[in-house]
Amino acid sequence: MTDVAPLHVWFAGGQSGAWRVERINAVAGRPLTAVNQIAVRHGQEPPLPQGSAWALRGVTSYERYVQRAERSALVARSPSLGRPEATHAALIPIRKSASWWDLTQEDRRAIFEERSRHIATGLEYLPAIARRLYHSHELGEPFDFLTWFEYAPASTELFEELVGKLRQTEEWAYVEREIDIRLMRLDHAA
Amino acid sequence: MTDVAPLHVWFAGGQSGAWRVERINAVAGRPLTAVNQIAVRHGQEPPLPQGSAWALRGVTSYERYVQRAERSALVARSPSLGRPEATHAALIPIRKSASWWDLTQEDRRAIFEERSRHIATGLEYLPAIARRLYHSHELGEPFDFLTWFEYAPASTELFEELVGKLRQTEEWAYVEREIDIRLMRLDHAA
Repeated sequence: MTDVAPLHVWFAGGQSGAWRVERINAVAGRPLTAVNQIAVRHGQEPPLPQGSAWALRGVTSYERYVQRAERSALVARSPSLGRPEATHAALIPIRKSASWWDLTQEDRRAIFEERSRHIATGLEYLPAIARRLYHSHELGEPFDFLTWFEYAPASTELFEELVGKLRQTEEWAYVEREIDIRLMRLDHAA
Repeated sequence: MTDVAPLHVWFAGGQSGAWRVERINAVAGRPLTAVNQIAVRHGQEPPLPQGSAWALRGVTSYERYVQRAERSALVARSPSLGRPEATHAALIPIRKSASWWDLTQEDRRAIFEERSRHIATGLEYLPAIARRLYHSHELGEPFDFLTWFEYAPASTELFEELVGKLRQTEEWAYVEREIDIRLMRLDHAA
């Protein structure tokens, strides 16, 4: 949370990688090509698996909306990625509309938290659901954000509840493209 | 100001390009290699002049700190780039410290405007000094921002005053690297 060294990531969809795709849904806008597996690679230009159908790129960055008290609460309750029991994951790429980006920072914050409770809602699901946000808006990518979630099988319903709540908010009216990709870690997949 | 389509830019320093380097100063941190000319290219991966000593990349993005009333004032008074009389330019790449990026958004805004008057100070110099901010923080670049300024020869002292004021602010205590490059448009250079 307070580690500001940017971490670059590539999610490559194709026939290889540590995560098996359980399903891939276009929640809003144009779908992504269906793939069987996703490989996660770090670095600015890492080698990607041959024959990937697509590769989505993002980078961690500084916080745009979180205030001090919220940050403390998040830091206190956020689990790290890679917990052995977190064999389920979701990758949710999102693109927001031009009208979102044309809002001022204060307007975006008001919609994001005061009216849509994005941070407060996420907090309710900690520490069950680990999360990392990657930014893509500045990278010339088709999406603005790539959010990666990890959770144990027992938290599957909790996760559905979380994404369901967020999709009903005022903030989500600004989402013009969203893909929901559910994954299972291959060392764990049947 | 309200055009949210990102504009990608490359500033290539070397022996060619439309802008002649009048001087290049390291205000803080490590210097940049001295060059004679700078070429400005738009696009995500545009062809750059052969033999460039360096190339700095940025992209326009949404506003982080400007509030509604400030935006209106800026829009009303901001000239466009490329005015025929604006034969002088400055390119100022800046890198802020990890402690800046570790602040919350509200802390950064408080330092940026309430205490350092960055927006209000810039407004005083409009419309004489045209300005465009490019973001580089997410691009894996050595700088976080590239700011491009254009002004007529008669505004040279005004410009010195503007950068002098900004460098005395609390915000500038977070600048760990800054290069000040002054330029003259070659069709105008003697």
